[in-house]
Amino acid sequence: MQISASEIAQLIHGQLEGDGNTLVQAAGKIESALAGDVTFLANPKYENHLYETNASVVIVSKDLVITKPVKTCIIRHAMPYYGFCMVLDSYFNPHQNREGIHPTAVIAASATIGKGVYIGPYVVVEDNAKVGDFAQLYAHVFVGRNAQVGQSTIMYSGVKLYSECVVGNHCIFHSGTAIGSDGFGFAPTPDGSYAKIPQIGNVIVEDNVETGANCCLDRATMGSTILRKGVKLDNMVQIAHNAEIGEHTVIAGLSGVAGSTKVGKHCVIGAQVGIVGHISIADGTQIGGQSGIPKSIKEPNQQFMGSPAQPIKEAFKTQVVLRNLPNLEKRIQALEQRIKDLTQ
Amino acid sequence: MQISASEIAQLIHGQLEGDGNTLVQAAGKIESALAGDVTFLANPKYENHLYETNASVVIVSKDLVITKPVKTCIIRHAMPYYGFCMVLDSYFNPHQNREGIHPTAVIAASATIGKGVYIGPYVVVEDNAKVGDFAQLYAHVFVGRNAQVGQSTIMYSGVKLYSECVVGNHCIFHSGTAIGSDGFGFAPTPDGSYAKIPQIGNVIVEDNVETGANCCLDRATMGSTILRKGVKLDNMVQIAHNAEIGEHTVIAGLSGVAGSTKVGKHCVIGAQVGIVGHISIADGTQIGGQSGIPKSIKEPNQQFMGSPAQPIKEAFKTQVVLRNLPNLEKRIQALEQRIKDLTQ
Amino acid sequence: MQISASEIAQLIHGQLEGDGNTLVQAAGKIESALAGDVTFLANPKYENHLYETNASVVIVSKDLVITKPVKTCIIRHAMPYYGFCMVLDSYFNPHQNREGIHPTAVIAASATIGKGVYIGPYVVVEDNAKVGDFAQLYAHVFVGRNAQVGQSTIMYSGVKLYSECVVGNHCIFHSGTAIGSDGFGFAPTPDGSYAKIPQIGNVIVEDNVETGANCCLDRATMGSTILRKGVKLDNMVQIAHNAEIGEHTVIAGLSGVAGSTKVGKHCVIGAQVGIVGHISIADGTQIGGQSGIPKSIKEPNQQFMGSPAQPIKEAFKTQVVLRNLPNLEKRIQALEQRIKDLTQ
Repeated sequence: MQISASEIAQLIHGQLEGDGNTLVQAAGKIESALAGDVTFLANPKYENHLYETNASVVIVSKDLVITKPVKTCIIRHAMPYYGFCMVLDSYFNPHQNREGIHPTAVIAASATIGKGVYIGPYVVVEDNAKVGDFAQLYAHVFVGRNAQVGQSTIMYSGVKLYSECVVGNHCIFHSGTAIGSDGFGFAPTPDGSYAKIPQIGNVIVEDNVETGANCCLDRATMGSTILRKGVKLDNMVQIAHNAEIGEHTVIAGLSGVAGSTKVGKHCVIGAQVGIVGHISIADGTQIGGQSGIPKSIKEPNQQFMGSPAQPIKEAFKTQVVLRNLPNLEKRIQALEQRIKDLTQ
Repeated sequence: MQISASEIAQLIHGQLEGDGNTLVQAAGKIESALAGDVTFLANPKYENHLYETNASVVIVSKDLVITKPVKTCIIRHAMPYYGFCMVLDSYFNPHQNREGIHPTAVIAASATIGKGVYIGPYVVVEDNAKVGDFAQLYAHVFVGRNAQVGQSTIMYSGVKLYSECVVGNHCIFHSGTAIGSDGFGFAPTPDGSYAKIPQIGNVIVEDNVETGANCCLDRATMGSTILRKGVKLDNMVQIAHNAEIGEHTVIAGLSGVAGSTKVGKHCVIGAQVGIVGHISIADGTQIGGQSGIPKSIKEPNQQFMGSPAQPIKEAFKTQVVLRNLPNLEKRIQALEQRIKDLTQ
Repeated sequence: MQISASEIAQLIHGQLEGDGNTLVQAAGKIESALAGDVTFLANPKYENHLYETNASVVIVSKDLVITKPVKTCIIRHAMPYYGFCMVLDSYFNPHQNREGIHPTAVIAASATIGKGVYIGPYVVVEDNAKVGDFAQLYAHVFVGRNAQVGQSTIMYSGVKLYSECVVGNHCIFHSGTAIGSDGFGFAPTPDGSYAKIPQIGNVIVEDNVETGANCCLDRATMGSTILRKGVKLDNMVQIAHNAEIGEHTVIAGLSGVAGSTKVGKHCVIGAQVGIVGHISIADGTQIGGQSGIPKSIKEPNQQFMGSPAQPIKEAFKTQVVLRNLPNLEKRIQALEQRIKDLTQ
């Protein structure tokens, strides 16, 4: 594949500086790119790479002041990384679009299948399920009874969508993710054992959501567990029954949101974070990795860290003292001795 | 579906107050229920909902004193939530019972298949495996050589049961759970690499166990990893080789029990908890989320929190001081200055 | 199966003491072994078991001084546990070698399949993929376009290998592990949502690597995520995009290594550990369970613990004081009162 700098500039609506006939065949990082690569410079801190790179085309900020001679063709864009993403997506994406229904797919007669879909080998689509136009269901995907998959949504090999659950358009689910497994709900019984609380609700995933591999989105006890539009989950994230994750919130790997908790919009939640059940997290909250959130966060746009979490500035102060804790004790001992000496 | 209040009262052996011909078509929460819903009131704190709900039938405690007029039909029961669960299970469970063996299932001639089973598309049952009466194996389930699945046990799509492992009756396993993957055991070799310790044991899961999605129950090095009857695991819980989890113990999501550890009966273990290997945890122990348990807990029915865990009261006290740690240091500084002033 | 002590001694190049015709049929732990079992004694602390065991054959260290009469046949070996592993592997491994291609496997015409392979029911091997000699792909394994599986590598039921990813020889992957799911990369867009950064790189897994069940190895944004030879991962470990794990490094369950981080050789990393992105960890580093590593570790062969992690000795000291924190505050109060009294 050969792409010209002009084609790239046109694709991303960028402003070309240099020879538009420059050709690229691959994409790389600016510091390791080879001749024939397209790359980008987003952080002005790394400006010096621009003068040293072997790349043939570099996408830079439209405001970047270039202070030395450059060998490469330049394309200016308001958001260089985003522009570069558009280039990767159009020319270099390893997940090529697929079409066609494999003869081994088991699709219920009552299911509704859109046009232009890909349904791979050994996929199972049960009664009354709906698969939207251009959806991509890789091998071994399971779509339960009455479940719905939106348009252009991709489910990689082995994704399991339980019955009654509804997934929007342009979503991506990576392998092993379970959507609609039962919430963790049990009621004590007279004999000391637990009775299962049937989880009769479902999961609703809105448009443009992506989850990593092996995530667990539990169906609601009653009603719905909801992931609002644009939510992005890393691998192995648990969203428990009746939780709701707000628009464009991002959660890193191995984190869990417990039952009935409502996380706001535009939150950024680190890895291995635990958020207890039945609380709410304000919009724009940022939570550091391994934090534990034991109660609601009401003020928006604040940062937290620690387990239990503190506001981030306090948490850092606590950490500093914590590292000196043995020394602190020695200082107290010294004071005690000093006073003893003084009063004898 | 139309169910009468009388039918519900009969099902749960409850005491009806009001018009037994009242019909319901759905179930809901008391605060948001609509006309035609059955619901319940378990916590007397929310008694006011009883007087305001739009539900048609409410299951309440047999001792509840009703102090205001109610518009709904009442059913009294010793354990209202449990009674409600019975109603959900009988009338509203989205996991309807299934029967029949799909023609695409690959079942070894030497396997033993009970009566009334459901074996879905693309299920694989290997040599000498046994599947009990009325078991439900959803699409893409794998049952390895000599493995056994008990009566009425449900394995949702994509559950993997390795060879030689034994699962009891009335169990539920959610998608992606692996039962019998190798324990994590390696021996150092002369050249500095690790040699795999073959894991020749198995996993035994007793009756009435439920696991969430993507759990990992490792087979024993020798002998068995055991989940006793009534154990309930949330999503993504790891039970390592040779561990044993006692009867009716509950473990929340993303927690791990390391090798050879024995957890007692009726324990309640929070999410993201880590329990080290080769220890034992007394019956009735309760452990807060994100705790780390570095050594055995010998006294039963105690509560712990923190990493490393402390008895819960001490842990709360520590947390309070911890939040004031920077202030504590300032007080020490002040004392030091004070003494310096005094002695000059 | 009957194996003689002589056969075992020959297999492991051990030195026989006692009757080489002694027969064993099973393997067990020294403290619970039965007559007819082979076992081992690695830790001299448990020497007394040697004199009491019912086992028929015991593999012991070549230097062990036997101080009392023994009833069993002895085999001496430089590394008794390793010798025992060889015995387990040769005679007692439940994962028997398999061969043959199941007629239901869907294998692209352009795929290259080695000799002596096992390809189970409902396996899917896509275009231009390569499966090495004697590889074992259990039921429901997925091998994407252009992906490669090395010789004698085992993928248990439900492993998913995404397109373009490359796995070496003699590797083992347990059920549900996803190799090559997209890295977690998103760029902010002008409207406040996130644009997906296409992950155009791959995953490279070198020889003799083992992962547990439900691990997530993300493909690189560009370039490769790499697991060097001999790496061993427990269950549910996440290796993020562009991370690199050094030779013979071991990582326990539910841990995560964030993007672009480089972990050295021969490291030992506990369970539920989080390592942030874009740092490097020196060779031979040991990290305790539940630790959080916020910055690079430069000195090799050091031990760390805590979140954020400290050198292990300091961490233990901090823990001791931490447990006494409420008491520490009381001592400060007492000092304050004392000074107040003194100065009045």
